Amino acid sequence: MKILKSAFILSLFALPMFGQNKAPIYLDETKPVEQRIEDALSRMTLEEKVKMCHAQSKFSSSGVPRLGIPELWHADGPHGVRAEVFWDEWDNAGWTNDSCIAFPALTALAATWNPEMGALYGKVIGEEARYRKKDVLLAPGVNIYRTPLNGRNFEYLGEDPFLTSRMAVPYIKGVQSNGVAACVKHFALNNQEIARGHINVNVSDRALHEIYLPAFKAAVQEAGVWSLMGAYNQYKGQHCCHNEYLLNDILKRDWKFDGAVIADWGGTHNTIEAAKNGLDIEMGTWTDGMRWNKTNAYDEYYLAVPFLRMLKSGELSEDLVNDKVRRILRLMFRTNMNQHRPWGSFGTEEHMLAGQKIAEEGIVLLQNNNDVLPINLSKTKKIAVIGENAIKVMTVGGGSSSLKVRYEISPLQGLKDRIGSESEVVYARGYVGGKSTQQDGLSTGQDLTETRSAAELLAEAVKVAKEADFVVFIGGLNKDDGQDCEGNDRADMGLPYDQDKLIGELVKANKNLAVVLISGNAVAMPWVNQVPAIVQGWYNGSAAGRALASVLVGDVNPSGKLPFTFPVALKDNSAHALGEYPGDNVNVTYNEGIFVGYRWADKEKIKPLFSFGHGLSYTKYQYGKVSVDNRTMSADGTVTVTVPVKNIGSRKGEEVVQLYISDLKSSLPRPVKELKGFSKIALNPGEEKTVSFVIDAEKLKFYDDTRQEWVAEPGTFEAIIGASSTDIRGKAAFDLK
Amino acid sequence: MKILKSAFILSLFALPMFGQNKAPIYLDETKPVEQRIEDALSRMTLEEKVKMCHAQSKFSSSGVPRLGIPELWHADGPHGVRAEVFWDEWDNAGWTNDSCIAFPALTALAATWNPEMGALYGKVIGEEARYRKKDVLLAPGVNIYRTPLNGRNFEYLGEDPFLTSRMAVPYIKGVQSNGVAACVKHFALNNQEIARGHINVNVSDRALHEIYLPAFKAAVQEAGVWSLMGAYNQYKGQHCCHNEYLLNDILKRDWKFDGAVIADWGGTHNTIEAAKNGLDIEMGTWTDGMRWNKTNAYDEYYLAVPFLRMLKSGELSEDLVNDKVRRILRLMFRTNMNQHRPWGSFGTEEHMLAGQKIAEEGIVLLQNNNDVLPINLSKTKKIAVIGENAIKVMTVGGGSSSLKVRYEISPLQGLKDRIGSESEVVYARGYVGGKSTQQDGLSTGQDLTETRSAAELLAEAVKVAKEADFVVFIGGLNKDDGQDCEGNDRADMGLPYDQDKLIGELVKANKNLAVVLISGNAVAMPWVNQVPAIVQGWYNGSAAGRALASVLVGDVNPSGKLPFTFPVALKDNSAHALGEYPGDNVNVTYNEGIFVGYRWADKEKIKPLFSFGHGLSYTKYQYGKVSVDNRTMSADGTVTVTVPVKNIGSRKGEEVVQLYISDLKSSLPRPVKELKGFSKIALNPGEEKTVSFVIDAEKLKFYDDTRQEWVAEPGTFEAIIGASSTDIRGKAAFDLK
Repeated sequence: MKILKSAFILSLFALPMFGQNKAPIYLDETKPVEQRIEDALSRMTLEEKVKMCHAQSKFSSSGVPRLGIPELWHADGPHGVRAEVFWDEWDNAGWTNDSCIAFPALTALAATWNPEMGALYGKVIGEEARYRKKDVLLAPGVNIYRTPLNGRNFEYLGEDPFLTSRMAVPYIKGVQSNGVAACVKHFALNNQEIARGHINVNVSDRALHEIYLPAFKAAVQEAGVWSLMGAYNQYKGQHCCHNEYLLNDILKRDWKFDGAVIADWGGTHNTIEAAKNGLDIEMGTWTDGMRWNKTNAYDEYYLAVPFLRMLKSGELSEDLVNDKVRRILRLMFRTNMNQHRPWGSFGTEEHMLAGQKIAEEGIVLLQNNNDVLPINLSKTKKIAVIGENAIKVMTVGGGSSSLKVRYEISPLQGLKDRIGSESEVVYARGYVGGKSTQQDGLSTGQDLTETRSAAELLAEAVKVAKEADFVVFIGGLNKDDGQDCEGNDRADMGLPYDQDKLIGELVKANKNLAVVLISGNAVAMPWVNQVPAIVQGWYNGSAAGRALASVLVGDVNPSGKLPFTFPVALKDNSAHALGEYPGDNVNVTYNEGIFVGYRWADKEKIKPLFSFGHGLSYTKYQYGKVSVDNRTMSADGTVTVTVPVKNIGSRKGEEVVQLYISDLKSSLPRPVKELKGFSKIALNPGEEKTVSFVIDAEKLKFYDDTRQEWVAEPGTFEAIIGASSTDIRGKAAFDLK
Repeated sequence: MKILKSAFILSLFALPMFGQNKAPIYLDETKPVEQRIEDALSRMTLEEKVKMCHAQSKFSSSGVPRLGIPELWHADGPHGVRAEVFWDEWDNAGWTNDSCIAFPALTALAATWNPEMGALYGKVIGEEARYRKKDVLLAPGVNIYRTPLNGRNFEYLGEDPFLTSRMAVPYIKGVQSNGVAACVKHFALNNQEIARGHINVNVSDRALHEIYLPAFKAAVQEAGVWSLMGAYNQYKGQHCCHNEYLLNDILKRDWKFDGAVIADWGGTHNTIEAAKNGLDIEMGTWTDGMRWNKTNAYDEYYLAVPFLRMLKSGELSEDLVNDKVRRILRLMFRTNMNQHRPWGSFGTEEHMLAGQKIAEEGIVLLQNNNDVLPINLSKTKKIAVIGENAIKVMTVGGGSSSLKVRYEISPLQGLKDRIGSESEVVYARGYVGGKSTQQDGLSTGQDLTETRSAAELLAEAVKVAKEADFVVFIGGLNKDDGQDCEGNDRADMGLPYDQDKLIGELVKANKNLAVVLISGNAVAMPWVNQVPAIVQGWYNGSAAGRALASVLVGDVNPSGKLPFTFPVALKDNSAHALGEYPGDNVNVTYNEGIFVGYRWADKEKIKPLFSFGHGLSYTKYQYGKVSVDNRTMSADGTVTVTVPVKNIGSRKGEEVVQLYISDLKSSLPRPVKELKGFSKIALNPGEEKTVSFVIDAEKLKFYDDTRQEWVAEPGTFEAIIGASSTDIRGKAAFDLK
């Protein structure tokens, strides 16, 4: 830079303002994206390329300021857009424009069994991200529910790969319709929090392909997801954020993923592996912060200066960084360099209502003996609401999905708002859990000064219950460490804080009892036969209390179905039955193979507490005869299964009709049945609709690990129609030729 | 919100994703902006409207999250884009992506007398702002240089309304070509820092219109500026941020300004006045911060809840807020809602070079006896660089224009880089000023541990000077409080830190001496007759040292001209001669009226130290005969003045040919002459060019305060051509009919 190049100075005057120069190709929207990528790449220095491959702050990665290529801003999801944090600290930065709408946890979305809800969810959370100027939303999570103890199950979509895929695809498309990238996570096999940072997962190829990968594959091939996050754990002895087999071979080669792989925060461990094995953007490596000598610690990232040095020395080929930068640029042209993306919107009433709608469709009526629900307000003078979860803030906590919300309507508030003066609502806390996190500036509405003993609280609750006409107990888990929370697993399936005892006392005090469980996981219910009504309430975000109230008083007829099995006890779960959970801190082996969730219960003929796909309604549905249009099917043909379903009760409702397929004989062991279709239909009282499912050979395939490909073997199959995985309403057989 | 409106829920599915609904008008780019504004306005609640009218953080104001209308992000200029600060604190937020290029101070830009430099400056600083996602750049400052003591003169464009206008207009257009609003400031009469927050300025209508308003008018009517900042001071007893006469009558009614008026930070004092008198966005009122009771203090802004209450009560008409919001929306459609704005770029080599080019054109060679400059390196074995300003960081400090820069090349570094091994460069500090501000993470390269006494430093400097073949003293002012710094004025015109004594010793030690003054203000030079070469070096930003070195060694032939008069002493300045500075802390009266700067010197026949328009070159220019194409001019006609100018030296150079007009007889007193044209021409040795100026009636007008309009009176005028305001090279007379 010693001598001023006057030609260069003169060229300043050749810039657009001073002449009629055309925009360079990479900024020319009329040019194909791939051409724009190559043009941009050709203008970049090696240093600029490397800078794009790693974080510059907690949640951003660099663009190319010289070329006008903007930075990428990432935001945690998947239930709302995380608050602004400081540049290099996790604490909230104290902005006042970042209070979001919290949407239901993904388990609740899965429980809607309604892909339209997935689309709505993706659309609205994408709008929130877009308004907040976020380019990448770290969502959805599609890891499979392998054990009820996984502390992060609430962020996922349940135990079944088909259901997970059907819900994730529209979510991703919805997010991306805003010009915001979804980032499907965590790829792959991150099915427990204990030892997640290093545990090596041993799993059969069949289970990998049939159980753990399908949702990712659908995200890539059906939703066209623009980014994907690597998992913390190892597979085949290599961390998943730079795993040759998962990222290079499966994701990028076999599935032809053209987006960017983003490391989970702190999931990168090695420069050469990160360079070679498919990681594109390194985020959150634990070297953040300014150093004592004022150097920027982000330069120390594996894909920062160490990467640059190896590129310069020739130890690593420039092709490696070029491939990463092409992918990042492609992501940018789809997001922050797409001038046609909409503007988004944030914290709106519409978004709250969307969340409420999803929540209302996701709440599952597990049990309703004597039709104690819905609460008949005209005959109920006094309603006792009992339990800490009636007032506990649930949008805060749980790990990276913790949110700063515009508001959160608690169950108690929702009930009071809905019931108004129709009945008297009284409340007793009943028990005290741990102190919850309280975020800056948000009044949690919680009494954190509770000083009474457990016995006093119990006694008060029982007294209140006795004096009421109806009791709603609202308990379950919460977002504290060791419950439904990232970074740790639960210790057991039981309810915490002695809730079982309290429920036992309440049911003795008043038989008009509904137990509402707020959780993202299955819990044990030793009192199941004493309690008439049980509702699985999930974490439902800003509108949680309104959605719950709507269901409890019958404004909304419940239509949710469980996206995972509730076993009676841990031993009924395959991961626990076979002893390989959580592993030995080095390895965990998925001995159960493909027999996860209902596939295990079916195989072992274990009766679950509540089955996968189970969910009651305030009305009843009568299923007619199941029929197929053809008894035989060619390899490239289809069979259509139909079943008439009639609402034989007196309320309008929605029913999720489920199609399972059973391969009656196969060369390799297969599950008794597998979910291959579902349809949520609305029926007025007396109305009947015929539901049909088209079955093609794809739905009959299994992954043949000897041939390393998906195979549909000729033979007889059964199309099984159920209202749950155990409530089978009919079958029809057909032969694949 | 008690009952869920199912029709509303259903309407969620009618949003774009779920149907083919067209975008609303306000988001439809094919619709005229005014129609989009009305459509957006019609959708907004009163609360949403009011929110747009005041800050939500130190540097942002609200959009409408519900409607996808983005926030406005403001950034201090005018010499570079200020670093990110915390949401509600002035401290830098510690981001590492916000180190900008600092451009020369606006005085330096004005000294180029080259509107192309104004355009280049605006373009590149606008690119920096755009890349940083800023929507409003708080620049340029166009207040008139009334007194050399004004601490903020360095941020302005000098003493002459015509020169200021010609430089501000292309700057504004350049900024706005990036889809970033310029915000011309400070409107109006903010000509001193002492008591700026409350002082009431009394000024004649003639001076107001002829001296203090023209640059603002040009910004509005020629540049089409999209926003304007109100001043701190009062006029006619009313604060300028909500001044009925200035904002409603002149700016919005007479000039038809259609943009938004933004308050200077803390310049708002009254809800009713702010509501009624033309303020659109209230920023920086001193009630920032979260309150003890966790309410948001921004709600307490004059245009926040107090405004909303008065609107709701009917005390204020909704028309008032509608007008403000229309203006803010118009600003938005031009900036953050313009999907076609370019992407910007940041901290680039090109930007540094642009700054260097501007600096090189702005540096003024005040005196060059015996042609001691440029330094002949081939005959100079040892160069002594002396003075603190050779090493002092000047981009930090000075108030709101303080910057966090990518780098700042000091004069010493610039000289060393340029000279390399051609000569030996030795340095002595000579004196120590105040400790300067040091910004986070930036090594200032300063020795802040200097412990030697003033006498020791002086002795060392003299010794070094004696042993050298050439001495460059680099001193002047700096950006500390009480020098060139916002918030205070200088106490006197003298150089601080006993520099006069040091210079006196240096010139005794070595007659090959060049004094370089780094300042944004005139200083007294009691040693002017002893020192052979004097250079006015300004604050030149990131490339400061490179630009200075280029001029000192002759790579660049200086072509800058003074944009303000250097008086010998304060008493030669009209504000001081007439005693009305800084006023009595309540009022200040501009007794000098229109006789500001050279207008006063001309009138009083005072010989300045260095005149307005003065600046030497390393070559010489010979002016030929001045002629007019017509001796008479009709009211709607023109006269063209021409003058041939020849480079009669041996170096290529650029000369600023200046046209002044003198009204030989008028009904009201007029200045002896006024600048009405200038042209910067490049001439090779021996080359001659003919410069022509077209004069129309506009250039002959004065503001007739009795008729309250601009008037050109028939009679004889002289077109005066000068190389400065006192170096007159020819005249030609003509008559206006």
